[in-house]
Amino acid sequence: MKLLVKWIFIIASSLSITLTTSLETCEANGNEGNDDIRNIIFLIGDGMGVSFTSGYRYFKDNPATFELESTEFGPYLVGQQTTYPNDPRHNVTDSAASATAMATGVKTYNGAIGIANDHTKLKSVLEAAKEKGKGTGLVATAQMTHGTPAAFGAHVDQRKNMSSIADDYFDDLVNGKHKIDVLLGGGSEWFIRKDRNLVEEFVKDGYSYVTNSNEMNNNKSAQVLGLFAKRGLLKMIDRSNDTPSLADMTTSAIEALNQNANGFFLMVEGSQIDWAAHDNDIVGVMSEMEDFEKAFKVAIDFAKKDGHTLVIATADHSTGGFSLGAQGQYNWFSSVINTVKVTPNYMASEIVKGAGVKDTLTKYIELPLTKNEIRYVERAARTQNARNIDNAIEEIINTRSYTGWTTSGHTGEDVNVYAYGPGSERLKGQIDNTDHAKIIFDILR
Amino acid sequence: MKLLVKWIFIIASSLSITLTTSLETCEANGNEGNDDIRNIIFLIGDGMGVSFTSGYRYFKDNPATFELESTEFGPYLVGQQTTYPNDPRHNVTDSAASATAMATGVKTYNGAIGIANDHTKLKSVLEAAKEKGKGTGLVATAQMTHGTPAAFGAHVDQRKNMSSIADDYFDDLVNGKHKIDVLLGGGSEWFIRKDRNLVEEFVKDGYSYVTNSNEMNNNKSAQVLGLFAKRGLLKMIDRSNDTPSLADMTTSAIEALNQNANGFFLMVEGSQIDWAAHDNDIVGVMSEMEDFEKAFKVAIDFAKKDGHTLVIATADHSTGGFSLGAQGQYNWFSSVINTVKVTPNYMASEIVKGAGVKDTLTKYIELPLTKNEIRYVERAARTQNARNIDNAIEEIINTRSYTGWTTSGHTGEDVNVYAYGPGSERLKGQIDNTDHAKIIFDILR
Repeated sequence: MKLLVKWIFIIASSLSITLTTSLETCEANGNEGNDDIRNIIFLIGDGMGVSFTSGYRYFKDNPATFELESTEFGPYLVGQQTTYPNDPRHNVTDSAASATAMATGVKTYNGAIGIANDHTKLKSVLEAAKEKGKGTGLVATAQMTHGTPAAFGAHVDQRKNMSSIADDYFDDLVNGKHKIDVLLGGGSEWFIRKDRNLVEEFVKDGYSYVTNSNEMNNNKSAQVLGLFAKRGLLKMIDRSNDTPSLADMTTSAIEALNQNANGFFLMVEGSQIDWAAHDNDIVGVMSEMEDFEKAFKVAIDFAKKDGHTLVIATADHSTGGFSLGAQGQYNWFSSVINTVKVTPNYMASEIVKGAGVKDTLTKYIELPLTKNEIRYVERAARTQNARNIDNAIEEIINTRSYTGWTTSGHTGEDVNVYAYGPGSERLKGQIDNTDHAKIIFDILR
Repeated sequence: MKLLVKWIFIIASSLSITLTTSLETCEANGNEGNDDIRNIIFLIGDGMGVSFTSGYRYFKDNPATFELESTEFGPYLVGQQTTYPNDPRHNVTDSAASATAMATGVKTYNGAIGIANDHTKLKSVLEAAKEKGKGTGLVATAQMTHGTPAAFGAHVDQRKNMSSIADDYFDDLVNGKHKIDVLLGGGSEWFIRKDRNLVEEFVKDGYSYVTNSNEMNNNKSAQVLGLFAKRGLLKMIDRSNDTPSLADMTTSAIEALNQNANGFFLMVEGSQIDWAAHDNDIVGVMSEMEDFEKAFKVAIDFAKKDGHTLVIATADHSTGGFSLGAQGQYNWFSSVINTVKVTPNYMASEIVKGAGVKDTLTKYIELPLTKNEIRYVERAARTQNARNIDNAIEEIINTRSYTGWTTSGHTGEDVNVYAYGPGSERLKGQIDNTDHAKIIFDILR
């Protein structure tokens, strides 16, 4: 009898070990029921196509080994999504249409913010989360009224109407309450206007208002509006310590939102990967990729500790037709980019303000430039036009690093989807941008 | 005592049910033990980066609906792979280094065929399959001696030595036997040479030899050499019925190999997606994508019926910096490409042979061209240089469709991995090109 009990124990243990092992193998990313998902952190790298995540791996590479080490994203790749809009004039999406698709589950026309083709308002996953009594937040390095955050919290016909978007954030209530608890990013000029001061209105309704890193870090309120620039924040590489990083803002948002016993929904956008790519500025792209990667790590670290948080990271589209390699060369020299200490934009604005071209280039680019290269920028500087100077510096860096670009606009390739935590299994394989909202709505049922 | 035994049974059963359920949930694509994998079909779309599979979806789209319907690839996306070589001179791979990595599990220098950096021979998965008594095959639309198939069946220092590669296919034995049972593709000039006639040698050793679709389809032998062109096959869109499609060759290879009771390993390459992309020829790219997609479908259909076949499809790298959208436009007009009935190369060669420019363009391009466009090609035609004419026609199609290109070479972005069948679970997420060989070697243990 004792022997039999011992046998039972051995059989049960071995079955249990098998079970545990197979679960660990197949559910490294977590796949429990909806009830286990308390929080959702949805991160969007604006414009972050496949070449961006691949290129960032080269950029962060340890040159002492020939291996390209994984970035924070690598372990969480689950698939890709299609991004096309529902727009008779365009089959490549803009950020507004793509964010609306991800926020509401409905494809729409380029420029639409939370609005369908027939101009009806579309409920967003942020609004659904608020209906369930969850905390809600939007974090971005663009102005808070920019296309991507806007699609989660506003309903306007055209993304350009940024004042209407800011108004919506305050006026458009869910069950009689403000729908967004945490707003951290840029764009004070659309909140503090001649016709209306939304900051005062938010503060009157109990929100904290913060305008620099220090104030943000000291905030204890569960409702907070943080505006750290008139329009977009400076790129990470150009930022002073006064301005928070995307990781800092994400940390702060999570701390505020996690006070809600019902959990939270938080959207975090690395807004300016796209902006730098529109400009064909590879220095800015890598700066903003780093900013976004660190924010992603904050979300993952929180989710790992918490155990009830689904993290999704993706892009809304790709931008610029960026390729690793150009001019027939079988190399992409990210090391060139690593020698540049501020964006070409930053250098251009210093030159326009009166700084010498050679001095500025030498100060901010560790790579020795040729006489011809310096002369090329000097010729551009004679126009006294910051954009010309910016373009000239970018061209040198693109040429030296073999960085390829095909456009100043967006491109239609599928973009990657990364996920971690309970429910992450549902995002795997080939999905569409509308599937994010469909899955999140289902989780919030 | 009886009660206790009954209890043990109940506990064991319930554990076993839990185990089975969790395995079924997470292994929808199949992930049974290695014993269940009899056959492996490994398909490589040479140069088929993410923009290629995305663009092909636009190209095949039903214009009557705004949805972009899925291609054959969509349902089988499991992740992506890194492709960089181990080459002090290059961090973007060529096809030889990448195919060697996928075939042998070891990264090497650009140009290497089944050879490590220290010039030791590396065993390939095809050779391992032959050691296990399996049938083995190589199918390609390039010459059989080209980089990708070569890395699975030969060991030479430089891919350019195509005669040595052909010699290796015959001379380099596994357990005293020829290691490749089925070779279907182009490249007769490297098999039938002044110094050696490998076709006669293969035939003498019992291989069938076929040179057109009809002969190939009538072949019943388990060992067959099929060479359908002196070098590469014509692109699918330019091919006559005499020349088999990649799907036809794949069907024929599977029929021959499936005679082996031990199962088989088959590598199928859509070789010329890459060639067309080097040429920045979007018509050729879409032609070869279609050829490859149909071959993939043949593999999937066989695997679904067979139940013991693992199908993997991937690319070795991306080529050309191809983007969907260019010139700042938010459109990619694949409909333009659909109006072109042969490759620009084909038109150029007809014009060089004496055909009129306008007549040729009107005959093969259904889209009405402008006078300026026709004049542009006429100017190129005055050089009597086929390449100039080809480039001029390509430029018109690229401009009209908003197709972007950054290079005539390869690019370093990650490429997609598709998989189906038992073991497909093992390829999911972010992997490296060497992981294919590591996984296949493990399956063949």
